[in-house]
Amino acid sequence: MNDRLLRALAKEPVDRTPVWFMRQAGRYLPEYRAVRERAGSFLALCSTPELACEVTLQPLRRFALDAAILFSDILTIPWAMGLGLEFVEGEGPRFREPVRTAADIGRLGVPDPEDDLGFVMDAVRAVRRELHGRVPLIGFAGSPWTLATYMIEGRSSRDFVRAKTMLIEHPRELHRLLALLAAATTGYLVAQVRAGAQALMIFDTWGGILTTPAYHEFSLEYMRRIVRRLPREHESRAVPVVLFTKGGGGWIESMAQSGCDAVGLDWTVDLESARARVGARVALQGNLDPATLLASPARIRGEVGRILAEYGPGSGHVFNLGHGITPDVDPEHVGACIDAVHALSPEYHRAPGSATKPAASSPGTVRAPGTTSSSGTS
Amino acid sequence: MNDRLLRALAKEPVDRTPVWFMRQAGRYLPEYRAVRERAGSFLALCSTPELACEVTLQPLRRFALDAAILFSDILTIPWAMGLGLEFVEGEGPRFREPVRTAADIGRLGVPDPEDDLGFVMDAVRAVRRELHGRVPLIGFAGSPWTLATYMIEGRSSRDFVRAKTMLIEHPRELHRLLALLAAATTGYLVAQVRAGAQALMIFDTWGGILTTPAYHEFSLEYMRRIVRRLPREHESRAVPVVLFTKGGGGWIESMAQSGCDAVGLDWTVDLESARARVGARVALQGNLDPATLLASPARIRGEVGRILAEYGPGSGHVFNLGHGITPDVDPEHVGACIDAVHALSPEYHRAPGSATKPAASSPGTVRAPGTTSSSGTS
Repeated sequence: MNDRLLRALAKEPVDRTPVWFMRQAGRYLPEYRAVRERAGSFLALCSTPELACEVTLQPLRRFALDAAILFSDILTIPWAMGLGLEFVEGEGPRFREPVRTAADIGRLGVPDPEDDLGFVMDAVRAVRRELHGRVPLIGFAGSPWTLATYMIEGRSSRDFVRAKTMLIEHPRELHRLLALLAAATTGYLVAQVRAGAQALMIFDTWGGILTTPAYHEFSLEYMRRIVRRLPREHESRAVPVVLFTKGGGGWIESMAQSGCDAVGLDWTVDLESARARVGARVALQGNLDPATLLASPARIRGEVGRILAEYGPGSGHVFNLGHGITPDVDPEHVGACIDAVHALSPEYHRAPGSATKPAASSPGTVRAPGTTSSSGTS
Repeated sequence: MNDRLLRALAKEPVDRTPVWFMRQAGRYLPEYRAVRERAGSFLALCSTPELACEVTLQPLRRFALDAAILFSDILTIPWAMGLGLEFVEGEGPRFREPVRTAADIGRLGVPDPEDDLGFVMDAVRAVRRELHGRVPLIGFAGSPWTLATYMIEGRSSRDFVRAKTMLIEHPRELHRLLALLAAATTGYLVAQVRAGAQALMIFDTWGGILTTPAYHEFSLEYMRRIVRRLPREHESRAVPVVLFTKGGGGWIESMAQSGCDAVGLDWTVDLESARARVGARVALQGNLDPATLLASPARIRGEVGRILAEYGPGSGHVFNLGHGITPDVDPEHVGACIDAVHALSPEYHRAPGSATKPAASSPGTVRAPGTTSSSGTS
């Protein structure tokens, strides 16, 4: 197996920086749009395992990516809780039954992942089967706070007034909701691991709208609980966990102390100072601005070079975007970005001693003693 | 004059933390909505000095604020450049002639502030006359980068793809545009000072969407140029400048080195660590989450207390929101917030030695030698 991703997340030596993209299976791909059309709706696509499996694999057929990420949505959990999810074209998700009162919260139950969310587990199993171990499969979930914002607002929001008002006026109720969501998310991620997910990511899309103390109390705390309850290993292999809070660049030190293996960064953070701030504790994932993919391949390569140089030599960096690929991106530009990572990153992974100067002409670099080879897509 | 604001910006002792709010003259006030109605349009309101003066003064009649801020809009400069500004109800600003090419940039000229933007200077003079020196008047402008985003996109944007593409593909053209805007903004702010503005603020609403190197090269650099070209004094009085980059919490060290007197903070940054990071160099302004004003007065008071405690003892803090007041806020809640600052902040401004314990019952605190009294709204 190409285990670059897992090795980089463990900060073990790799031959080059692994690369995958948030929303790599998505609307920028014509073959995705064809399957999405066939499915009839976004939710039908998510909940039909063979279609979810198909779109998960699509980007891997085009690109030499180092990981697959399950095609799904962070709102599967509240959907399974019975809030009545729908996706309105051009508007995003909406819940018919938003959660606004203590009574609303009291009615919620923890979904059974294999029963209520069995379609997700079936998709995980199908993807693992189809991948034949080529690259690892990443499972994921939304953070409890992020799920709560959608459940309370009933939709995406500009200022999250309802969610913030609940936070300030009724913190105990919000904590109850978040504890429930943390329990549901833990069970959901454990089930994904049992079904075959080899790494996990928690997306905290809206943690960045909070004050520093509120972020720690209402978002990070519940991600921490999930991380601590997840098994560190499954079938004798480590199952690394990545935490990503969009707009959370100010809090990466405490994120790194949550027990996670890696912190995802949006593009506003520079990797050099981020690496200095989190120390040797965790790996870092990121952080190309998705808008860069609209620029020319030459400019994309320049930005990839900048990001690789910012992280600098050594393992522990997973190349990614700072947020998901946007639908207007030309797939060829995604390819150019991956090519740039392949071309430019090996120089940062030479064994100590041989790492003085980039030398594309020296094929056989000496590895540090005790480390195994990590070459190629076996 | 109540010079608390100016003293706090100079980090000189004050009796309590000064307070004003971004967008304190605005739609949350019924008396504002009445004048706005009479004006017919937002732009008519901005460009009619007596009406702009009237709405500038409205919040000061209701609340014991420590500063007035000119009612205007950051887009006056591109408007005066002839881009054809309009405000679409529920959508925000739009330019009929966006700036997309080198030729578009080549056609732009630097507006004459007293001629093309004379209505702003007239409003400044009118406000100063009406204020009778009660509180200082803050003048302001948008940052060159923020103006450029609106000019390039032609409107507000979710992802600023056009502006970012120009940044990546045509950095030299963008620099030309930004240099022009910096020159225009410098002249505009100088004219505001001559007309009577006693402090200045530069709003960088969209600097926070950039990568760290791009922020420094395309946003902060041009704010720095403006700050360095502004006179430090006018008529023998210091004219302090506040820089505010929304989402710029990661960059406050370099903002503090720009030559500005204070850094404005959004609510995601905690004041204690911000103060430690910028050191004694600058004052800090902020940073209550505007959504807090929708909560009950008791909760508002709690958050005010938290923020004051985060900054801690000593001068150099100007209480404000982390962004503008939203239209749905009850004016009574704004009053409750100001009352809380008045009630809770004096304990952080006792003279050294007497600052062991908050003691609301000790009226006459001993001032540090060499400092003058800063009491009251004289």
